[in-house]
Amino acid sequence: MTSLIYLIPVAGVLALIYTYVKSAWIAKQDPGTEKMVKIAAAISEGAMAFLRAEYKVLAIFVVVVAALLGFQGANTEGSSYLVAVSFIVGAMCSGLAGYIGMKVATKANVRTTHAARTSLGDALNVAFTGGSVMGLAVVGLGVLGLSILFIVYSNMYGTDMANMNKVLTVLTGFSFGASSIALFARVGGGIYTKAADVGADLVGKVEAGIPEDHPLNPATIADNVGDNVGDVAGMGADLFESFVGSIIAAMVLGATFMTSTDYMDGFNGLGAVLLPLFLAGSGIVISIIGTFFVKVKEGGDPQRALNLGEFGSAGIMLVAFWFIITGVLPESWTYEDLLYRNDDGTNLIRTMTAAGVFYATIIGLVAGVLIGIITEYYTGYGKKPVLDIARQSITGAATNIIAGLQVGMISTAAPILVLAVAIIGAFHFAGLYGIAIAAVGMLANTGIQLAVDAYGPISDNAGGIAEMADLPKEVRGRTDRLDAVGNTTAAIGKGFAIGSAALTALALFGAYMSAAGIGSIDISKANVMAGLFIGAMLVFVFSALSMGAVGRAAMAMIQEVRRQFAEIPALKAALEVMKRNDEKEMADWSKADQDTFHAAEGTAEYGKCVEISTKAAIREMVVPGLLAVAAPVVIGFMPGMGKEALGGMLAGVTVAGVLMAIFQANAGGAWDNAKKMFEAGVEINGKMYYKKSEPHKAAVVGDTVGDPLKDTSGPSLNILLKLISVVALVIATAL
Amino acid sequence: MTSLIYLIPVAGVLALIYTYVKSAWIAKQDPGTEKMVKIAAAISEGAMAFLRAEYKVLAIFVVVVAALLGFQGANTEGSSYLVAVSFIVGAMCSGLAGYIGMKVATKANVRTTHAARTSLGDALNVAFTGGSVMGLAVVGLGVLGLSILFIVYSNMYGTDMANMNKVLTVLTGFSFGASSIALFARVGGGIYTKAADVGADLVGKVEAGIPEDHPLNPATIADNVGDNVGDVAGMGADLFESFVGSIIAAMVLGATFMTSTDYMDGFNGLGAVLLPLFLAGSGIVISIIGTFFVKVKEGGDPQRALNLGEFGSAGIMLVAFWFIITGVLPESWTYEDLLYRNDDGTNLIRTMTAAGVFYATIIGLVAGVLIGIITEYYTGYGKKPVLDIARQSITGAATNIIAGLQVGMISTAAPILVLAVAIIGAFHFAGLYGIAIAAVGMLANTGIQLAVDAYGPISDNAGGIAEMADLPKEVRGRTDRLDAVGNTTAAIGKGFAIGSAALTALALFGAYMSAAGIGSIDISKANVMAGLFIGAMLVFVFSALSMGAVGRAAMAMIQEVRRQFAEIPALKAALEVMKRNDEKEMADWSKADQDTFHAAEGTAEYGKCVEISTKAAIREMVVPGLLAVAAPVVIGFMPGMGKEALGGMLAGVTVAGVLMAIFQANAGGAWDNAKKMFEAGVEINGKMYYKKSEPHKAAVVGDTVGDPLKDTSGPSLNILLKLISVVALVIATAL
Repeated sequence: MTSLIYLIPVAGVLALIYTYVKSAWIAKQDPGTEKMVKIAAAISEGAMAFLRAEYKVLAIFVVVVAALLGFQGANTEGSSYLVAVSFIVGAMCSGLAGYIGMKVATKANVRTTHAARTSLGDALNVAFTGGSVMGLAVVGLGVLGLSILFIVYSNMYGTDMANMNKVLTVLTGFSFGASSIALFARVGGGIYTKAADVGADLVGKVEAGIPEDHPLNPATIADNVGDNVGDVAGMGADLFESFVGSIIAAMVLGATFMTSTDYMDGFNGLGAVLLPLFLAGSGIVISIIGTFFVKVKEGGDPQRALNLGEFGSAGIMLVAFWFIITGVLPESWTYEDLLYRNDDGTNLIRTMTAAGVFYATIIGLVAGVLIGIITEYYTGYGKKPVLDIARQSITGAATNIIAGLQVGMISTAAPILVLAVAIIGAFHFAGLYGIAIAAVGMLANTGIQLAVDAYGPISDNAGGIAEMADLPKEVRGRTDRLDAVGNTTAAIGKGFAIGSAALTALALFGAYMSAAGIGSIDISKANVMAGLFIGAMLVFVFSALSMGAVGRAAMAMIQEVRRQFAEIPALKAALEVMKRNDEKEMADWSKADQDTFHAAEGTAEYGKCVEISTKAAIREMVVPGLLAVAAPVVIGFMPGMGKEALGGMLAGVTVAGVLMAIFQANAGGAWDNAKKMFEAGVEINGKMYYKKSEPHKAAVVGDTVGDPLKDTSGPSLNILLKLISVVALVIATAL
Repeated sequence: MTSLIYLIPVAGVLALIYTYVKSAWIAKQDPGTEKMVKIAAAISEGAMAFLRAEYKVLAIFVVVVAALLGFQGANTEGSSYLVAVSFIVGAMCSGLAGYIGMKVATKANVRTTHAARTSLGDALNVAFTGGSVMGLAVVGLGVLGLSILFIVYSNMYGTDMANMNKVLTVLTGFSFGASSIALFARVGGGIYTKAADVGADLVGKVEAGIPEDHPLNPATIADNVGDNVGDVAGMGADLFESFVGSIIAAMVLGATFMTSTDYMDGFNGLGAVLLPLFLAGSGIVISIIGTFFVKVKEGGDPQRALNLGEFGSAGIMLVAFWFIITGVLPESWTYEDLLYRNDDGTNLIRTMTAAGVFYATIIGLVAGVLIGIITEYYTGYGKKPVLDIARQSITGAATNIIAGLQVGMISTAAPILVLAVAIIGAFHFAGLYGIAIAAVGMLANTGIQLAVDAYGPISDNAGGIAEMADLPKEVRGRTDRLDAVGNTTAAIGKGFAIGSAALTALALFGAYMSAAGIGSIDISKANVMAGLFIGAMLVFVFSALSMGAVGRAAMAMIQEVRRQFAEIPALKAALEVMKRNDEKEMADWSKADQDTFHAAEGTAEYGKCVEISTKAAIREMVVPGLLAVAAPVVIGFMPGMGKEALGGMLAGVTVAGVLMAIFQANAGGAWDNAKKMFEAGVEINGKMYYKKSEPHKAAVVGDTVGDPLKDTSGPSLNILLKLISVVALVIATAL
């Protein structure tokens, strides 16, 4: 094999070096006052406690599944026990990436706060650097793990077509491992974060009158941990899964060209198989370059800085893609598609071009950006859809909810049309391989995309710490500016995540068909249609399980917070004091009242709340996880169903999953910003409405409903549709 | 052609005779006091005003589409301009059925109230008889119209295979006409009913403290009209569409057997084509018989009486089916499926049996009943899911909403599994024809099923009239008992409607493939996958349009009701009086207060509210309607998409549509009953909660959100998935 391939693990190592250098830099930044350090330590402990508990459960899962996989692999022609090894490596890489990201995020948060005491630009720098560690850890470990395993397996088995199929079959275990961790991280993390959020909001804010980031709110630490657990580690696992899933799908489909008789590249026919790895590796380098563009001066616009980094690297990447693709692939070639038969019984001959593959990547990138922009319209503060919801809040909570549901549902139209055009376009230019490569193209940017995503929760934490540590208002003002931008990028990130999940799932779908030896999946067959229905139903059931989990976990949290308010005397006394002095600044309180208040500090039992959230999240994530893994196995092996019905199920899960994910994410985002409009003050029909007005309360209801939709259920669907596709791919050769 | 076929229109005529006889009987019943008569007249006028306005718009639609259809039919090989004639006849039959049903329902309501002044049994009798008029009008006109057109076209063209395909192609226009009216009736009716309901509830009950069925509530007449418009005419149109759609789909698929060389029946090979008509005709007779079983004594259980009628006729129908099917079809036969090709290029030979067809009908009937029972569990008063929602109402509106969404989503699991098994089972026994016949089997019961459905809104109206006319409490008590049972049967009816819609849509899907000459629809093709996504997206968009329509119409209603309260002096004065005397019985009020109250009677401007609801409904139903008709045409004829992509779209609409319809209907039903639990008083965690408690208010929010879901959006999806399939079927030969 060409020695150029060794460039790929080198890119992975480069990413990890960057990760190391930047983490060290962050650790050297000043963490601020003693109080700040204490708070940050509490958040860090809570986050690591969650990770430990989660990884304990995951370890059991990994061992059991690895055993089953190894057994299946060893007994299947064209596979081997090594698929279990790939699985374990994939799971470990995903887990490690999550761990690195969280560890650095929980260092970066308080250092961002400290930087915000003096400079917006410095604060952005710290927060974004923290995010970039997450981003580069994900892409680095993904590329490194995949490429090293590929090299090892290729040397073991050989690189002609039959053996390459075996190499890739065994490699798919890596994606399965990544997906499994992603599911539990997203679901568990999402449940954790919502339970804590709801507890802190509902009881703290609404009942006791204590704001959310207040040291006397027992759920406040859990709330801040939740940001890390859900939005850093969870999002990281999500994109890790998409990233490696798209690469593997493209590699599997690239191997189908090896039947060609006129395919000439410099890689012994492996060009199309290696291309995704080359693209991903280049993405690492370009993402690193992009991070250097993200800087802002005092009074500058953080949004612009982030955009420059993101779109700048996207532009560079497009140029790089042209050179890489035309360099790796032949100008054109034909191949015999073993799965499509003409009417006369011969196999279909397809023609491919390197230019076509390049166009497919452009389509992927453009589609991702478009979907992100559309998401921004439907969820954006001050835009028409969010204003509609605000207006409907005047007539109460019910009309607010109806308006939000409506916005969420209608917001699926444009993204789906973009997706449909992207599917047809990518397929037109380069067949199923084109769809897979489009996904890779969209995701090659993941390093910096994730940096921008993870920057948000770090800023959010920074603001919470500023509040809890009693820092001057201007500090919170700076972190709020960063956070506000973070909300927008989060929305675009979610749109991007769902677009890439859709293309990845379709790419995996194509790879599944190739691996299972199916030429077509005909929905006029009863078992395929039944599979379609069941797949779509799984999406609804999965959502219900996620929402139910949040509800149950939140109830437990609410009871605990209420208990603390009732049973801890210092806390109870402080509460009464706060209620009595509701309107006054603390400086105007009586000395006795001030003493009572300060005596209560540190009495809230944060640890108990963290423990409750952790236990609930772990407990509730088991059933959805098992469902996602078991369903394709059951359908695939059930007599009367079988591999075509499983194909139908994949289609059902993908279509319903993408739609529900968009619906839920956008409804939640729109509800959130509608509430924020009231908090800033908004004019409707000539009248001004502010915080604590009746419409604001109605908007809070919508926001509370939308939270688990956009932070737990919606993201979990992203994972579900990829995980189910990966499981199908892994068992494909056995069907 | 055999003269037995003339039995079918005779059955249709029989149904219409029944309709005439029973309407005359109802008209002869005593309508009660002068006040009652006035109120009933107001409701009747409002209902007819809505119908007139709606039919004006529909007439334009029918003329335009008929012209387009006629043009397309005349220029397509295998079709003719007569498809436009079928379209017009189908639309007229559907419209006429709706008109008859509404007219009689608005006579039956007040006569039910009067009967309830003395006897529960008499009240049930009147209400149910009114419902049965709707039921038998639908099946009678459906069977009559279809069979007469079939006989005429067969005589025109001939009955050999090529001509029979032309006959059936032209006949599909009837189903298209029925579906179009159904869509506008369901959407328009649903919007009307919800706008009025929300207006009467939100402003009347919540703001002004006036109960909904109170003569001083300006929206009260519109509310009662809405029951008729939405739940009588709308439901009638829905089942009319399913009924004729399933019959036509089965007829089209039955014609594929005419390639057989060993098919021997007594109908010159037309047995499989005529079978659906025979089954439907027998259903009419058996439904009529069933109505005679529905009687209850004083102190008896209305639920039991209705069940006896429903399940009794289902039982008789099973027996009748055996004889009809084995009488009409040969014991077994083989035929060449022109669309399925074996690997060696020859066509697939399939074997069919009469017994297999019979088993398919059993599967259909059983599936319908099961789905109904499952629906009852998830939405039933006092059952676990509803109790869950009630419990979650204690922590506020947001948790109530989350719980309701969860119940709705998880409630899709069992019905979908039932559906999947039914699809596979029916296909196993009798192929695609089996699925169509299963739908016919489920729907043959429609006469009495619709009677039971339509009985509910009549009882609801009767209760409202009792309230408005100041009748003694025991009258309302009796109508409430009838109404409570009506809610349960409505839930089962909705489950049944969605199950039959799903099977009908699949049957039409099969017929579409046959008519378009497509052997398979392969979802691994990009355009088919794109079609799948777009179809599912249409479901979300359609829901959003329905919900948005309700919101806008409701806002208009709310403003009007508020305006009346503020600007009509007598009303304003009465309101203040009511607020001041909130706790007292009216007998304890001061004389001046009582005078003020009575002076306000008749001052509320009901007509304005009715007008607003009507205008809003008509205005809002246009876009969804055009979307449903245009989408398949656009996709079918678009270069790059085409007939297979359209097949994908049909699958997408069907799968997403069935799931969303179940989700919305069940969430809405569960929210409704959760609210009712508080109104009756419910114990949770050892504590009692009653009307006007905080949890009750939260439950009211859930109920208000659920209403447009279960009464507007959900039912509209039923129609959408059938209408889109029918449009595709109609244009199939042109693609």
